[in-house]
Order: sequence, then C-alpha cells, then structure tokens
Amino acid sequence: MKDKLKIVKMLDEFGVDYIEAGNPGSNPKDLEFFKSAVNLKLKHSKLTAFGSTRRAGVDVSKDSNIISILEADTKSVAIFGKTWDFHVVEIIKTTLEENLCMISDTLSYLKSRGKEVIFDGEHFFDGYKNNREYAMKAIKTAEEAGADCIVLCDTNGGTMPEEIAEIVQAVGKEITAPLGIHCHDDCGVAAANSIIAIKNGANQVQGTINGYGERCGNTNLCIVIPNLQLKMGIHCIPKENIRGLTGLSRYISELVNQSHNERAPYVGNSSFAHKGGMHIDAVLKNSKSFEHINPTTVGNERRILMSEVSGRSAILKKIKAEAPWVTKDSPEVKLVIERLKELEFEGYQFEGAESSFSLMIKRALGLGREFFKVKDFRVFEDKFSEEYTSLSLIRVEVDGKEELTAAEGDGPVNAIDKALRKVLELFYPSIKRMRLTDYKVRVLNTNDATGAKVRVHIESTNGERVWGTVGVSTNIIEASLQALIDSIEYFFYMESEETVPEIELTGSSIEI
Amino acid sequence: MKDKLKIVKMLDEFGVDYIEAGNPGSNPKDLEFFKSAVNLKLKHSKLTAFGSTRRAGVDVSKDSNIISILEADTKSVAIFGKTWDFHVVEIIKTTLEENLCMISDTLSYLKSRGKEVIFDGEHFFDGYKNNREYAMKAIKTAEEAGADCIVLCDTNGGTMPEEIAEIVQAVGKEITAPLGIHCHDDCGVAAANSIIAIKNGANQVQGTINGYGERCGNTNLCIVIPNLQLKMGIHCIPKENIRGLTGLSRYISELVNQSHNERAPYVGNSSFAHKGGMHIDAVLKNSKSFEHINPTTVGNERRILMSEVSGRSAILKKIKAEAPWVTKDSPEVKLVIERLKELEFEGYQFEGAESSFSLMIKRALGLGREFFKVKDFRVFEDKFSEEYTSLSLIRVEVDGKEELTAAEGDGPVNAIDKALRKVLELFYPSIKRMRLTDYKVRVLNTNDATGAKVRVHIESTNGERVWGTVGVSTNIIEASLQALIDSIEYFFYMESEETVPEIELTGSSIEI
Repeated sequence: MKDKLKIVKMLDEFGVDYIEAGNPGSNPKDLEFFKSAVNLKLKHSKLTAFGSTRRAGVDVSKDSNIISILEADTKSVAIFGKTWDFHVVEIIKTTLEENLCMISDTLSYLKSRGKEVIFDGEHFFDGYKNNREYAMKAIKTAEEAGADCIVLCDTNGGTMPEEIAEIVQAVGKEITAPLGIHCHDDCGVAAANSIIAIKNGANQVQGTINGYGERCGNTNLCIVIPNLQLKMGIHCIPKENIRGLTGLSRYISELVNQSHNERAPYVGNSSFAHKGGMHIDAVLKNSKSFEHINPTTVGNERRILMSEVSGRSAILKKIKAEAPWVTKDSPEVKLVIERLKELEFEGYQFEGAESSFSLMIKRALGLGREFFKVKDFRVFEDKFSEEYTSLSLIRVEVDGKEELTAAEGDGPVNAIDKALRKVLELFYPSIKRMRLTDYKVRVLNTNDATGAKVRVHIESTNGERVWGTVGVSTNIIEASLQALIDSIEYFFYMESEETVPEIELTGSSIEI
Repeated sequence: MKDKLKIVKMLDEFGVDYIEAGNPGSNPKDLEFFKSAVNLKLKHSKLTAFGSTRRAGVDVSKDSNIISILEADTKSVAIFGKTWDFHVVEIIKTTLEENLCMISDTLSYLKSRGKEVIFDGEHFFDGYKNNREYAMKAIKTAEEAGADCIVLCDTNGGTMPEEIAEIVQAVGKEITAPLGIHCHDDCGVAAANSIIAIKNGANQVQGTINGYGERCGNTNLCIVIPNLQLKMGIHCIPKENIRGLTGLSRYISELVNQSHNERAPYVGNSSFAHKGGMHIDAVLKNSKSFEHINPTTVGNERRILMSEVSGRSAILKKIKAEAPWVTKDSPEVKLVIERLKELEFEGYQFEGAESSFSLMIKRALGLGREFFKVKDFRVFEDKFSEEYTSLSLIRVEVDGKEELTAAEGDGPVNAIDKALRKVLELFYPSIKRMRLTDYKVRVLNTNDATGAKVRVHIESTNGERVWGTVGVSTNIIEASLQALIDSIEYFFYMESEETVPEIELTGSSIEI
C-alpha cells in the first residue's frame, strides 16, 4: 500500500495523464487503496478506477463491481467490455444483444454519476477481424453511451503493425470520440503498434512502466514515451521530465523487486554501453557515431565496458588512472590485458564491477597496498533439530598484527561478513561509514548444479559514492569473500585519499 | 569452437538461409572456425564470412582483412561499408570519394573471386536522413560493383517504424538489387521495423537468436520468424521447422550461458502462462480466448501458474491430483490457499517449481509420506592460508534408523548435497538415477546485502522427466537444502509409483 502510494506520486511527478490504480470491484485491497489515495494531492495525473461492464442480467445500479467503482470515488473510470463476438458467446456466455446493453447501461450510468469514462474495448482487433460489424457496433454503443475515450485493445497481443495501422485508421473514420490503444507484447511489437496507432489517429496509449504485465507484458511506456516525445515530436509528458525516465524505471524495478533489464531500450544499464574496440574508439571521438541519442537526455549514461575486446585505448585509460606514466607501448598494458583475459576465462565480468577492475590493475602492476589480509577462517553451519545457525571464526592480519574474532549471522556469507567487519573496526573505525547495498549471485554453468561456479556481485556505498566489485569461485563463500574484500579495500583507498580511480557511478550492477 | 559448430548445425537444421559466423579478419579464432567448418555438410544454410571494405588507401588485394575473408573460403561473404557521410569524414577520417572507391574495389574484387556478396550499408538510415544523396550514392556504388543483396542497416537503432517504411520504399524505387534490413533494438522496435521493411519490399532480415547483440541487442529472429511466417504468411524457414523455435531459443541461451528471458514473445516460459482466475477459466474453456496462437505451434506450452490469484479452479485441479475426493467447497481448498498465501508472502514462487507445490499440498493435507528426515548437519567451511575446504556431516533418519556420514564438496551447498546423497544411497539405491540439472539463486530484497533472503530453484531429471523445486531462507544453505529435499522426495514419490501429480515439463525454471 505504501509502495503503491509512492508509485502513484512518482508517476504524477513524471507527468502521466491517467493512473489506473486498481480494480476496486475484484480486489478489496484496491478499494482500500483508493480510499486512502483521496488525500494525495496530484499535480498532473488523474487517478482512475478500473472494472468491467455490469454482469449479464443484473441491474447496473445493483452490480457489486459498479458499486465498488463508485466507492473508489475517482473522477475518472476505465471500463472494459467485450467487443469480440466469440468472447461474448463462448466465454461469458451471454447474447450479443445483452453484451451491448451491458456496455450501454454501464457507461450511461457512470456518466450520469459525473464520471469521465474511458471504454476499453477488450479484444477489439480480434473482434474486428472476426466480425467487423459487431466489434464496431460495440464501440459505437460505447460512444453513444457517452464514452470520453474509446481504447482499442489488442488483448492477446497477436496483431501485426500493418493491421493496427489499417484498423485504427478505419475506426477513426466512423468514431468521433478520441481513440486509445492498449497492446500486449506477445509478438514483440507492442511498442511499435502503440506508436503506429498514434500516427494513425489514436491519442491515448495504455501501458506500464518497464512493460510489466501478464504473459509477455503490456506496452512498455519506457519505450513509447521517449519514442513519441524525442523521436516523433509528439507531446506526452512535460519536456523537462523525460530526464527522470531511467530513474523512474529503475526505482519501479526495485519496488516490485524485479531485476532491472540490463538491455532495456533507453533505460537499461547496457543501453549505452560500448564494448568492441572499434565502437569505443568511435564513441570517444563523437558519441553520435554509435548512440542514437545522448544518454543523459533520459537520465541514463554511457558506459565503456572493460573486457578483452574493449580495445587497448579504453584499457589504457584505466591503467593510466592507476599508473599515469604508462604509455600504450609499455609492457604493463600487455600484462593487464593478459590478466584480464585469464580472469574473463574464469568467469569474471567487470561490467558493473569497475572497482574490482581498478584493484586488479593495481595488483597486476604491483602497486597494491595491503590494508589487511584474511589469514584463515572457519564457518560452522549447523542444523540441530529445526534450528539453523551460522557462526564464523576469522583471523585477520593488519600491519603485522593478527586478530581473531567470531560472529554469528543469517547464513554463512553474512556470518563471515560480520566477523570481518568486527575485526576491521578495531583498525579502521571508518569502515562503519561503508555499507553494502546490493548482493547478487549468478550461477554460471548451471548444469553443474550445486557444484557450479558462482559469480558474486556486491555493490557498496559510503553515502556519497557507489562502487561495485566481483568474485568468482565454485565456492559461494570464497566468491563472496573476494567481492567483499575488494569492496572494503576500495573503500580504504578512497579513505586514505590515495589516487582514487575514476568511478563510474552506476545505479546498480549487472543484472543476474 | 565446438559450441559454435553446434550452433551452426542447429541453425542449418532450423532452416535459416545465411549464417554469418564471424569476422576472420579481426579475430584469428573466427578464421580457425571457418577452416574447421568446411567439413560441415550443411543442408540449407550458406556459411558467410563477415568483414569491412578495404582500408583507405590500401590495395584491396593486399588488405589483410580481405585476405582473411578469402581464406575463410565461404561461398558467401557480407561486407559492411560506410554510407553515412559523417562516419566517413569524422570517424574513419577519409574522403567521401575514397569511401566509394573502398566499396567499389572491395565488392568488385570479391565478385571476381566468385563470391556471393551481401553489402551491409552501415548507418544507412542515419546517412539517408543526413545526406540522402551520398547514402544513395554509396549503395548504388555497391549495386554497380555487383552486390547480390544490399542491406539497409539501422546501426544505432534510432529509426522509427514510419521512417523505415518510407525509406525502404523510396530505396526500392532506385535500386534493383534485392534489399535486406538490419536493425538494432535501441528504441524497442527492431522486430517491428524488420517486418515493416519486408512489407515495403525488403527480402532479407538480419538478426540473432534471442536478439543477442551490443547495447539493447539486434533484431530478435525468434520474434521476426514467427511473425512473418505465422502471422503474415511470408515464408522464412521450412514450415514444419517452426515447431523447433522454442527449443532452438532455449538451447542457444544455454550455450551462451544467459538466463532465458521468461517473458520473451513466443519462446519464453511465461509467454503462454496464465495466472489471473478469470483468464485461467477462459483459457480452460477455449485457449484462443487469451492466446494469440497455439503455443505448441512454436514448440512452447501453456502454463497455469499456481499463485494466490490463480483462482480456486486451477488450485482445485492441483489438489484433486493429490486428493481426488476434494470438492470446491471442501475445507482443504481453503487450507491450501491459506498456506500458499503464507509461502508467497515469505518469498516462495511456485512458477517453475510445480513439484514443490504438489508436495506442499500433500503436506498441508497431511498426506505426505516421510521418505527420510534430515535430523541435523554441520558444515565446516574453512580457509587455511590459501586453501578452501568444505566438509559436511549429516545425520539422516530413514524408517527409524539413523545414519551419520560426511562428504567434501565444492562449497558448502555441494558438500551437503553430496553427504545427503551418500546416506540416501544406502536406503534408496535408485537415487543414482536422479541428477540435478539446474541450480539457481535469486537474492530477494538485495538491500539487505549478505543478510538478504535468497530463493533457490533446483531442476532435476531422471533422464525422462524434468521437475522443479524451490526453497527460501535468509540462509542459502537452508534454502538450497529445502529445494534439494523436495527434489529428492518428489523423485521418491515417482519411483514408489504412488499417484504422481501431473508434471508440467518445463525446459527450465524461472529466470533469476
């Protein structure tokens, strides 16, 4: 509920016109939500309750769903009704005539109660192709009953772009109410279909942030909004807000606890990432050579990925941050590239773990400083009857002094994390200012099952900066410890104000 | 290399026309690959080597890239060249005239050596919009030099569908050579752009399986092929092969070690998954109500997802598989739904873990049989100097008898997996026939870092069937052990030939 209020506020700030926030008739939590949302002072968006036309054979004023929709007390409502004859007869099992009455009664009634009514013509495109006359009759009924907008829905997501163009155009000739478009991505063309509908006369797009939705998802607004606004010059949201797109998209991923799609158009971590040597060279010369827009326009950023194929110039830049005297012909460059190849072969990926990459360079060139050394540890992972416990002993050496300590945690990795910090606090009290913000595990070669290699990505912050590190091993404890040690070492370098390599501030590390 | 040969064979079986298998000039491994690929007897596809036009100011017959391309010894070659004036002048820093000579020389030379030559006009759409005359001159030069196909590339992925339609049409009026289309998904419309180009006169689509490629990816052939072939009636591959689409897509995900996109159109695990009660009811009545095609057409399958919102009818069906006497009003239904809600709240997801769902029902209804019980265990996870060891003790009870054993493994989870199997083999030798095929870890609430909850998905097989199980805990050992125990228990149920609940054979579990 708190999360949902937060999302509504964010969408309002961002400037979308309508926020369909739930179906009060089918879900009591949604009704509750609308009741608490009346206190939200929205600047831009209209909160909209969603529900279906009245049930067959029921008086509209006594239909429990319609009663709940009115209780939600929004200015605007979205009502879906059947427009595909097959669904009327075979699925809801009523007559074609009664379905038209259901549309007419529901919309007239809600209009008489002062609502702005959006009519969602469910399965409109399938209906139109199967029985054009009936589908048109259904939306004309909605228009006559006072619908303020008629949304043509491709509910099953099976319609091709050319059909969308043709049908939206044809409908526009017979309907004077504003048209909307609602697509699903079952054929991978929902975003294209939506903008094509707009080009052919529609003026409302329904969709979701990041394209969340059943099956393959709904239209992804994080694609449609920038396409319309930046590419086609069609106004969607206040111009200055488009910069908030990447932040909005990532924030919503976090809230719904989905990993952010790394390769998502516009907002992904890799959407403006360059890897091949030739591409990196070109982008460093002039960004438009391999970028269709400036990533900052949508709040995203360019990333130069460190990998075997990054090309010497990008790697050299990273080496110079650690060892400014190195030139492109120095043996150090070859040394680092060799080491990088080895590590990539073992399963390391430094994308999103640029701090581990910097530390790797320091170590390869013998420039590293040893802030501490984990000499040995033992983790006891016990289950006695139903009780699980994780206990870790650790021996750490700092400046020739050894310290032994122990800690208990939620699971073995947490236990060792706690024990290590406990020791290091004695020597470096500043470590309290650093905390981990993300911990991800990716199992490599899943076919080896529990004996497989894992790659652990850790993201840390000191409140001002964010940095990512990586560890790889068949042993999850070892992989985690590697990433953890890198993360702490990097922090100590920053604290000790030695040359701190340039950090690429990325919102999150590579998706796992 | 072996993997690459496997991919080539699969693509040939599937029936694609050209397989662009590498750039022999820029990568010695690719050249090596082509040399070993000559022995492949392909039934359908033409193996194609890829490379750029000759370098500026170099004699084409002495250009090392061109020499490598000839060495690759393929019948067909794909040559990319610049068509955007900006790239010629600013990035490769040559003259507009020399670039035309580079195109002309390279193509004429390769034609004279008997090659089928595909010309990829890099950045063609950006070039066309920036300097129409030059872009057209570049591809006309290619045509005059004998190009067998001219591919219009949207290299930066910034072009909108309407522009594609317009430009492809215009080009078709001036070029008589066959046209191709090559898109990138930076605006989320690559698949739509490709089919629109085909509708407007192009007859070759370049893309990749699953859309792999730099930044947001290339055109996803797993979308374009079924769209063209099933929706638009345009022949791409032999008709009967389209059933292999899902298998191909998943197999390639495995080979390149990427988790399969759950929501990918046509081939995702969730592409034909139904969750909401109303949708499930409708699909069970008639699948076309919420499915744009029959999933088996592309080798995929329908999934009815078990979750709080699945609706009673779907859950009832699962309960009946365990307890046939239960009816929709039995208290057992409420019991199971309550338990499901609790578990989902804790972070469980039974999508892809239907076996854990069946076991949960058995347990909730008191129908479970205890094949074995893990009484207690202790894992020693040690690092002494540089050596990591994982050792597990385990005490298991079977039919009132207790057995204690120990095993060593790669990491704590593997150690406990091995120890458990070692004990169980004494009582149930058949366990040797079962093995784990997939092990995945998803960190929930990543903000709790190493103390976060994890969800472990395990997939197992006995060579004939595949089943998925799940475990959740803040302790990765506990979560893994839960999923492991479920997996083994489910196997024992199958072995003991008790009522085995219907298994939904899914290629892999939920993406992590």
